[in-house]
Amino acid sequence: MGSAPPQLPSIEGLTLENITETTKLINSQCPNPRLRYIMERLVQHVHDFARETRLSSEEWMIGLNFLVQTGQISSDVRHEFILLSDTLGLSMLVDGINHPKPPNSTEGSLLGPFHTHDAPTLDIGANMSNDPQGEPLLCICTVKDTKGNPVPGVKIDIWETDSSGHYDVQHADRDGPSERCVMISDEKGRFWFKGIRPVSYPIPHDGPVGKLLEKMGRHCWRPAHLHFIFQKDGWDNLVTALYVRGDKYEKSDAVFGAKEALTIDFTTADAAIAKEYDYPEGGLLLVQDFILTTQAQTDKLRDDLAVKAIKQLGLNLKLVDHLPVPDVD
Amino acid sequence: MGSAPPQLPSIEGLTLENITETTKLINSQCPNPRLRYIMERLVQHVHDFARETRLSSEEWMIGLNFLVQTGQISSDVRHEFILLSDTLGLSMLVDGINHPKPPNSTEGSLLGPFHTHDAPTLDIGANMSNDPQGEPLLCICTVKDTKGNPVPGVKIDIWETDSSGHYDVQHADRDGPSERCVMISDEKGRFWFKGIRPVSYPIPHDGPVGKLLEKMGRHCWRPAHLHFIFQKDGWDNLVTALYVRGDKYEKSDAVFGAKEALTIDFTTADAAIAKEYDYPEGGLLLVQDFILTTQAQTDKLRDDLAVKAIKQLGLNLKLVDHLPVPDVD
Repeated sequence: MGSAPPQLPSIEGLTLENITETTKLINSQCPNPRLRYIMERLVQHVHDFARETRLSSEEWMIGLNFLVQTGQISSDVRHEFILLSDTLGLSMLVDGINHPKPPNSTEGSLLGPFHTHDAPTLDIGANMSNDPQGEPLLCICTVKDTKGNPVPGVKIDIWETDSSGHYDVQHADRDGPSERCVMISDEKGRFWFKGIRPVSYPIPHDGPVGKLLEKMGRHCWRPAHLHFIFQKDGWDNLVTALYVRGDKYEKSDAVFGAKEALTIDFTTADAAIAKEYDYPEGGLLLVQDFILTTQAQTDKLRDDLAVKAIKQLGLNLKLVDHLPVPDVD
Repeated sequence: MGSAPPQLPSIEGLTLENITETTKLINSQCPNPRLRYIMERLVQHVHDFARETRLSSEEWMIGLNFLVQTGQISSDVRHEFILLSDTLGLSMLVDGINHPKPPNSTEGSLLGPFHTHDAPTLDIGANMSNDPQGEPLLCICTVKDTKGNPVPGVKIDIWETDSSGHYDVQHADRDGPSERCVMISDEKGRFWFKGIRPVSYPIPHDGPVGKLLEKMGRHCWRPAHLHFIFQKDGWDNLVTALYVRGDKYEKSDAVFGAKEALTIDFTTADAAIAKEYDYPEGGLLLVQDFILTTQAQTDKLRDDLAVKAIKQLGLNLKLVDHLPVPDVD
């Protein structure tokens, strides 16, 4: 970076009218076509945003200071920009673009900031909760493909809050994982585990994102839910969650994760279930199928949707490694 | 923020197709019409950006981590988000929107991150540099209105780097202001001061913005320049800079501040100047007029341009306190 390439585009005649094209021209030096395209779109949208709002110098400074604060409150266990993305609906949009689902498969939802990599791998049927205050819950699940065949050997990450609405990592005195585990689906695609009834909770709202939500007149609550990640080679990673019907925030999740297709009803264990699963009769029960798609199914669907979107937008792009870049041929 | 308003818009049927409208609907609860409009445009552009790029989950994460790092390297004496805004052409665009200039007035340029509030107020004619390595420079200036009348009593902030290309605040052992001062224009609108020949220098490039420029194939240099701020009640604040013609980076300023209208030519002091200003004959000289606009002139021009832009964009907006908000009447 020590000296200027001699043939740089000139910014000599810079005006309010040509600054967007000039910036894009300077950025067109970028050797990576994908980064070049991303930055071209970024500059266009950032400039359009300023033009359409006639952004004042004071608002500009407030915005930049908000971004500094959002970075500075972030840490190893708190990613305030993910939270911002979540509250702007961006996270769900990016998930939807990257993991499109055919109608008969399980939809994705937010990963959120509370997944960890230290959850213990437990035997099927184990209890993952250490919270005596929580109402016990038995979940009996099956993993299937879109034709209804069981998918064995799937690694499933499961996590939820304790009964106070906090994940284990939110407790300063955490001495190990709790309310989280990893299981592997059996030869019939089944797994079952014992947890507790999930509860609604506020997202962290003592930082810049919480303050923004307050100014927006929005609340900061998530409806009660259970998190899942399904992973197996050859299959599209499924990051999802199940939301409890009837929750006060069922239809107003602060981070747009909840949706009808992922909303569940609890039942209670009858005598047969109680006996088979060593669980109290009348105890809270969830019976749930998860439908996975193969990597090939998802790749094809994602490409098809990308091509369709590009066409709708009238952009001259081609897909390279499933990602659009300008088609200059 | 303890509980949800009962009549929240429902996100029950959230899909990839309606997530943008749904997010905007949720945000429409915002009681402040200006913030509501800004967030409406922000959500639209952020979502459009993701849709047009088909942003991958990995790219999304890289982007969010870039933003965290940009916040975390920032400090009281370093605002990396201003630098990012500068390198994206946004800062110049926002300045142009807020301080439009009639053709016969001095154009604005970047404030940059190195202005301080501790510069000494010096008598007209004083030397503001303590750098014996710098080549002495005499600047003889006049402040005028757009009709050519002198403007007395203007407070002028002036600052530049030392001969090594560093502002005083960039030296860890700074023990006070140097290469900076404040002057007040005299009854004839005049002020003159002694400084040093400005030099080109790289913007701070050891952080996320520098790394991004490198990936973009862009250099990180600014052409040599002198900074000025002109302030007087009833007059539009003029934040500007003068750029040295012939500088290696004259036409490729990394932050888009340099422009032809602000490019200057040095001359040398003749015998008469040398005598009048107590300055060596043959020494480096700049003679420069600055043309200010009144607050009323700028407000009217800014409003006119805003109305014109709103009309061009086909938006249903009205101006309140010079800023567009949706016109819902």
